[in-house]
Amino acid sequence: MDRGGRLSEEPIRVEFGRLRYFIAMAFECVGMPAADAQAVASLMAEADLRGADGHGVIRLVPYLKRMRAGGVNLHPEIRVVRERAATALVNGDNGMGHLVMKRCAEIAIAKARSAGVAWVGAQWSNHAGPAALYARMMLPHDMLGLYFAVGNANHLPPWGGLEMLLSTNPIAAAIPAGEEPPIVLDMATTVAAYGKVKAKAARGESMPEGWMVDREGRPLTDPKRAAEGFLLPIGGYKGYGLALVVGILAGTLNAAAMGRDVIDFNADAASATNTGQAIVAIDPAAFGEVAEFKAAVDRLIRDLRGSERMPGVERIFMPGEQSHARAIAQRREGIAIAPQLVHTLDRLAEQLDIPPLRTS
Amino acid sequence: MDRGGRLSEEPIRVEFGRLRYFIAMAFECVGMPAADAQAVASLMAEADLRGADGHGVIRLVPYLKRMRAGGVNLHPEIRVVRERAATALVNGDNGMGHLVMKRCAEIAIAKARSAGVAWVGAQWSNHAGPAALYARMMLPHDMLGLYFAVGNANHLPPWGGLEMLLSTNPIAAAIPAGEEPPIVLDMATTVAAYGKVKAKAARGESMPEGWMVDREGRPLTDPKRAAEGFLLPIGGYKGYGLALVVGILAGTLNAAAMGRDVIDFNADAASATNTGQAIVAIDPAAFGEVAEFKAAVDRLIRDLRGSERMPGVERIFMPGEQSHARAIAQRREGIAIAPQLVHTLDRLAEQLDIPPLRTS
Repeated sequence: MDRGGRLSEEPIRVEFGRLRYFIAMAFECVGMPAADAQAVASLMAEADLRGADGHGVIRLVPYLKRMRAGGVNLHPEIRVVRERAATALVNGDNGMGHLVMKRCAEIAIAKARSAGVAWVGAQWSNHAGPAALYARMMLPHDMLGLYFAVGNANHLPPWGGLEMLLSTNPIAAAIPAGEEPPIVLDMATTVAAYGKVKAKAARGESMPEGWMVDREGRPLTDPKRAAEGFLLPIGGYKGYGLALVVGILAGTLNAAAMGRDVIDFNADAASATNTGQAIVAIDPAAFGEVAEFKAAVDRLIRDLRGSERMPGVERIFMPGEQSHARAIAQRREGIAIAPQLVHTLDRLAEQLDIPPLRTS
Repeated sequence: MDRGGRLSEEPIRVEFGRLRYFIAMAFECVGMPAADAQAVASLMAEADLRGADGHGVIRLVPYLKRMRAGGVNLHPEIRVVRERAATALVNGDNGMGHLVMKRCAEIAIAKARSAGVAWVGAQWSNHAGPAALYARMMLPHDMLGLYFAVGNANHLPPWGGLEMLLSTNPIAAAIPAGEEPPIVLDMATTVAAYGKVKAKAARGESMPEGWMVDREGRPLTDPKRAAEGFLLPIGGYKGYGLALVVGILAGTLNAAAMGRDVIDFNADAASATNTGQAIVAIDPAAFGEVAEFKAAVDRLIRDLRGSERMPGVERIFMPGEQSHARAIAQRREGIAIAPQLVHTLDRLAEQLDIPPLRTS
């Protein structure tokens, strides 16, 4: 705070390991086993590190609220319930989505190593943070990763409809390169993710036309009126189709919630969400020489980056390039956390009787 | 023609079997083996039947031109060059894409039956018509199908760029339902497919803003000026990322053409395109009871269709529903073909010395 007692606008820098430790301690306080708390905390801190700060430590308080309300199982028996050479269906037993997805990724990698590709679906999972985290898990194994999820609140009606029966169902893809950073796409199938609307509202800014419409189909640009309208899918009816297909692949196929069965996890902290996700690992060695594939990805990246730019455009970015740069910078300089959030976490530390995020 | 000698505007109706026979005869005239000619003709006629008329018999003359120029191998040895339990890489030996993709779909279905999922990539393939045809091939086997392709001409620059290094790289997905028609999504990753721009130009209509921009980034709405600009991806940078990822999955992973290596098949009829595609089959029996899955898809469809509509919207459609209805109607009433196209095909019949499409 400055001398007037107001919160400074400047973000506060916190070292990655410190952030992870703080999150893990908080989870242990509500009864999560230490190893699980470590695993979830690692992924949440990684979300912040990579700039996906809408899915990082900002979720700690809502997650804890859900745990205390009995909405998440702190001692899940995450298990494979169906299995073939290249597939598995994993029942997350209502555990934290991060734990369920980590397990699914491990299974997918092991199966793809022999079968060439593997598709692992999850049922009775929960919100798992940014999609990219899980597609990225294939990269150290020189594999391509795909990830599909049913979002945890419906904000999208079918095309031409008014009832919000679909979520922002995200897609992520991670592709290993050789010398270049990997290509990592992480996108909602709506023009804007709902978190971006909330961020605009918090900053008192208006939204660009095209993010949301009201119930008459007119552009809605005041984020404070967000409840009066709904998100627009990318490419109009195409994004509607994509959100629907992603939801079926990640939800319906796994007998997880989709459509009307999706529980709004903001409004209901106690009910199991039966969140569905799917993760795919592809071993490029099943299609050719891995080194040649990675060299071809490098060439493609360099061709795109080096190509002629529109007037005023300084650089052509690859998907995930800015997040990659952010991770490198924040590992060095610390992770930027908004002062308001640090303040919230300080109060949390007091309640839980744990050391604050910033130790003097 | 009417009495003034002008072509009527009314489409001409041609029975499915007749259209297929005509196309097959034309291919046989240039030396394609009869069985292959039948197979390609079936898929092209099916494209017209389902309303994907930009990919049906309208392509016959360009395909023949390519065959005569030596750009396509009429006697390909389509073969599996790499294989694992759930994957295959198929070398199409520069045969017609329809033949290559049909083979890939058969392999994917057989492998998914045991492995649960299968991913089959193609290299040295060619344009194969509408993406939906191949995702649909899983439906009679009660499987889900996905299809990714590298388009055969680059019309999309990277986000912020001017050089058209990417194509409209389409995605298709087919999902079996129980009593409802299947959900079939078939979408370019650009706001409009390039064929739609050409159709607007042919009809003398202007394009809506958002389809194309000029090299300064200004909206381009005159389709006759299409060469001065380029297509826009869906959702801005998201669609750019999606087109890139689809291109890597369908092209780069299979050592097929992608980015700067893509040959514009409109401009160059003689060079092998090395088109890349990928097809995925998912057996829902690997994840649960198939009947339960299909019933859940039915429920989802009915929930969406029956939900509240925007003022003025008469019906909420599922992806593929209109195409499905078109196929039923056109199987009964004949396939509508534009008079100008019938005229072109009549001249082709004369050249090839085969009976015309409409026999009296």
